[in-house]
Amino acid sequence: MKKLTTLLFLFMLMVSVECFSQAQQIQVKSPEFQENGAVTFSILAPDADEMLLHGSWIPDWNERIPLTKNEEGIWSVTVENLKPEYYTYSYFSNGVKILDPNNALIIRDGRNHFSGFLLKGEESKYYEVNEKSAGTLHDIWYPSQFLNMDRRMVIYTPPGYEYSDQEYPVLYLLHGGGGDEKAWSELGLANRILDNLIAEGKAEPMLVVMTNGNPDQTSAWHHTPGYNDAAEASFTTMMGNQQFERSLVKDVVPFVEANFRVKSDRENRAVTGLSMGGWQTQRLAFHFPEMFNYYGVMSMGVIRNGAFGVEGDELIEQTKQKMEKLNELGYDLYWIACGTDDFLYDSVEHMVEILEDNDFDFIYRESSGGHTWDRWRLYLSEFATMLFR
Amino acid sequence: MKKLTTLLFLFMLMVSVECFSQAQQIQVKSPEFQENGAVTFSILAPDADEMLLHGSWIPDWNERIPLTKNEEGIWSVTVENLKPEYYTYSYFSNGVKILDPNNALIIRDGRNHFSGFLLKGEESKYYEVNEKSAGTLHDIWYPSQFLNMDRRMVIYTPPGYEYSDQEYPVLYLLHGGGGDEKAWSELGLANRILDNLIAEGKAEPMLVVMTNGNPDQTSAWHHTPGYNDAAEASFTTMMGNQQFERSLVKDVVPFVEANFRVKSDRENRAVTGLSMGGWQTQRLAFHFPEMFNYYGVMSMGVIRNGAFGVEGDELIEQTKQKMEKLNELGYDLYWIACGTDDFLYDSVEHMVEILEDNDFDFIYRESSGGHTWDRWRLYLSEFATMLFR
Repeated sequence: MKKLTTLLFLFMLMVSVECFSQAQQIQVKSPEFQENGAVTFSILAPDADEMLLHGSWIPDWNERIPLTKNEEGIWSVTVENLKPEYYTYSYFSNGVKILDPNNALIIRDGRNHFSGFLLKGEESKYYEVNEKSAGTLHDIWYPSQFLNMDRRMVIYTPPGYEYSDQEYPVLYLLHGGGGDEKAWSELGLANRILDNLIAEGKAEPMLVVMTNGNPDQTSAWHHTPGYNDAAEASFTTMMGNQQFERSLVKDVVPFVEANFRVKSDRENRAVTGLSMGGWQTQRLAFHFPEMFNYYGVMSMGVIRNGAFGVEGDELIEQTKQKMEKLNELGYDLYWIACGTDDFLYDSVEHMVEILEDNDFDFIYRESSGGHTWDRWRLYLSEFATMLFR
Repeated sequence: MKKLTTLLFLFMLMVSVECFSQAQQIQVKSPEFQENGAVTFSILAPDADEMLLHGSWIPDWNERIPLTKNEEGIWSVTVENLKPEYYTYSYFSNGVKILDPNNALIIRDGRNHFSGFLLKGEESKYYEVNEKSAGTLHDIWYPSQFLNMDRRMVIYTPPGYEYSDQEYPVLYLLHGGGGDEKAWSELGLANRILDNLIAEGKAEPMLVVMTNGNPDQTSAWHHTPGYNDAAEASFTTMMGNQQFERSLVKDVVPFVEANFRVKSDRENRAVTGLSMGGWQTQRLAFHFPEMFNYYGVMSMGVIRNGAFGVEGDELIEQTKQKMEKLNELGYDLYWIACGTDDFLYDSVEHMVEILEDNDFDFIYRESSGGHTWDRWRLYLSEFATMLFR
């Protein structure tokens, strides 16, 4: 029985062999936050010829900031005056992209990955993890009878959902081209934004349903690689086929209302999306006006000339009738947001003209900035406060 | 009203500007699967001096496979005869690690990232996404009164959980040193394994609770960076403080049983873990014998000599009494698994001797292989079939 003394176990050896082997002799911390929004980026690469940096605060993707090497072989550069925001960045050496090996946070944007960091401050306070009041994210599969496949979506339930008997309203939140069902939680921080707004009483407790808006995909491409190779190449075509919008109405909304404790009437349904999702939101508004009471169109408008050979007289008449139907039914909010540097800004201005010409009620929120996630996080932070109250 | 013709929207411009800018002139597909387990790895890097590869099928972390460059500037190499498995790999150039820019799947192991792929086949069939029968993953926060913080865990509910009235048994699944609450779903594919075993009737439908076993963390370090800097550096010390095991019993089990539709008796609770989690499993067995009916100890044993100055006579006597208590209470399974190349193999052999000397009932499953995730996925695939039936 004395051998039981040895039931006190190994402490030191539990890190995997791989982690041990990877341990660097020289410790590098990156990124490092200085005062006044200065951030220092570093990487150990004694044998590299050059090291360059691009970050999401630089509008021009081809602009690179050079790092300089010290005698230990650590390359570094300090960027000044960054605003509080959730940023991505990468290094480049000899034309090859390198993620920061000293930063545990990597963020996926479609098929691309970047190192990431949250620079904390007033403008980014809703993007912080709220440990004291955090909702639940569900990765859940549902049968799409309309698309004839099983598909994954991400559903946010607000803090307290598991304990309460309350029924909640639902926001359907749509991603852009190249995105998938994980985009709004991982890039858009939708759950953190809702956690913080709800905690401050600035948004009503609500579910947020984040679907995959690519109607040929069962789930994000990196999750089920090989399933969507052919379709992925032609996904721009799929944007026009309206299959996603129909599936949202016929498959997703009924599934959510059957399996989650939600209010299942039009008054308690909202929809918003960015870019492709903004286009889908417009289609949902005018083709399924009986479904939603709140609409948010982010960074997407209407091109000046009809195109792509799909605008037959019948379709035009249908759209006009459904726009009138939406007006008859009424709605509490039709909100449009775009940045003045957005490459789709012109299309949004044109859309605004059309809606004005048709005496259609809406709010237009013009911001600075372009076609980027910092805008969409901001727009969600604003849109969510206007719903269900 | 003719302007409504223009309500047919932009198709072509919805990919973000960044994605456009990143489009390479030369398309590279990587990895590419050939016949008989051959896999070709490629990367476009015309200006690189060298390109090397390491993959998780190579036991020695310092071993590198050289790639060769063609006239287009694409480096590539074909690796032959890989077995079906979920693999990780990275490139290296001038000592800098590079993730495969043409592979959308990046897998995190603690603070390190790797490119990844599933090589499909008989041995990896339980690691595939089962779209027809997939359970739900919940990222959920719970209050830990014992640790005085709010903490995140991942809970798997089996297919049908949302629709049925059934109550399910629960497996508590613990990660190793350096891991966190996401390790078993993202690296260990626990949800896919359970989906597939349940679909084939080889495992009972059950919940799987994947906690964060580092008692100083609220959630994975990359998720809440900055919260745990100091503690992270000394996490080996924390493994010995038993705070996690106590918190699992006092906070986690009651939370799960209060908020999920589960069976809440000892017969319907199992626990298993790898490495540090295997040590925690042993402690749970002998210090809280009234909690669990099934135990799995993966890749972790008992050192030959007591150490670290914690084995006072009182503690030894307590442990002995609790081992006897577990025997009195009875249990359906105490399962031990280890690979013969595991650097902790010796400790496992020693543990087996001790248990035999004490007439303690257990099953020892010795495998090939080392202290690696391919083993732990395999062990979970086996252990899960023996529970609750």
